[in-house]
Amino acid sequence: MCPLPVLVIGSYDGEGRANIMTVSWGGICCSDPPSVAVSVRRGRYSYEGIAEHEAFTVNVPSASQVRDADYAGIYSGRDEDKLKALGLRAVKSELVNAPYIEEFPLVLECALRQTIKLGVHTQFIGEIMDVKIDEEAVDEQGRPDVSKIQPFIFAPGDGWYYRVGERMAQSYSVGKK
Amino acid sequence: MCPLPVLVIGSYDGEGRANIMTVSWGGICCSDPPSVAVSVRRGRYSYEGIAEHEAFTVNVPSASQVRDADYAGIYSGRDEDKLKALGLRAVKSELVNAPYIEEFPLVLECALRQTIKLGVHTQFIGEIMDVKIDEEAVDEQGRPDVSKIQPFIFAPGDGWYYRVGERMAQSYSVGKK
Repeated sequence: MCPLPVLVIGSYDGEGRANIMTVSWGGICCSDPPSVAVSVRRGRYSYEGIAEHEAFTVNVPSASQVRDADYAGIYSGRDEDKLKALGLRAVKSELVNAPYIEEFPLVLECALRQTIKLGVHTQFIGEIMDVKIDEEAVDEQGRPDVSKIQPFIFAPGDGWYYRVGERMAQSYSVGKK
Repeated sequence: MCPLPVLVIGSYDGEGRANIMTVSWGGICCSDPPSVAVSVRRGRYSYEGIAEHEAFTVNVPSASQVRDADYAGIYSGRDEDKLKALGLRAVKSELVNAPYIEEFPLVLECALRQTIKLGVHTQFIGEIMDVKIDEEAVDEQGRPDVSKIQPFIFAPGDGWYYRVGERMAQSYSVGKK
């Protein structure tokens, strides 16, 4: 399927150390309560931490952070402190028991509500308790501006990351009769 | 969250008529069995059809089809035949009891495996039984090529649809030590 997001998931491990992992299996799943779904393989180092602390963050990296995001998808927190290796700063959420990453432009702080075993992946459903966004990444009305956040997408077919391109049309408008 | 996909969901209604609706709450949720999650509000016309027939398709529109996708998100199959209005052709899947749309470049045919009530949205988990893609949208190795599919993304903050831009980096490569 496409386009797929690139999401850096923040959690604490069993010793309370902040860790990140990058996933592309995920998305918004409910408007009220506002909820996001991310899928994690059992055996991934973040899995137990999310389940134990019942919390995670979804950090959206900007195109300039593609190396960090790719790194966090390749290496395991079992073997090293990825945040230290990348020079990223984990901040403890005041709302859930998970860290978010200060350098990423958009952050969702999530309380784990459901854990759904699907197969090799388990889906974590998190209620979004707060959204934090860089001041520089909002438009004049204070709304998230994708052209400023500059997220990027993952194409599993050929393994490329793609930039988000230009604005094309307005929703609930271009298709009106 | 961003980036979010634009997905046209195909299903049959209670009378066996093909219908489509556009959603952005969804994504891949499991690699094995390969599965996709899409969230639909109860009360949407497609809801009962997906539940009754235990099947749906995920059709990825190309940027040139943004009007069709937006239209299918604004209007209801309860009031009109959207496929007829848009001049799109529904094809009965040979694998699941749902129609896919011939004109869209990428199609997933899904058998409903789980129905998870989350709040105002219910998440349908579909096992992907087959993927169909236009011959023109694959690369030389036969893999889906996002630059040829030309999917687009939805930004709920300001309501813009954005194109997918240029290739930026290779995954599992750019972040290597």
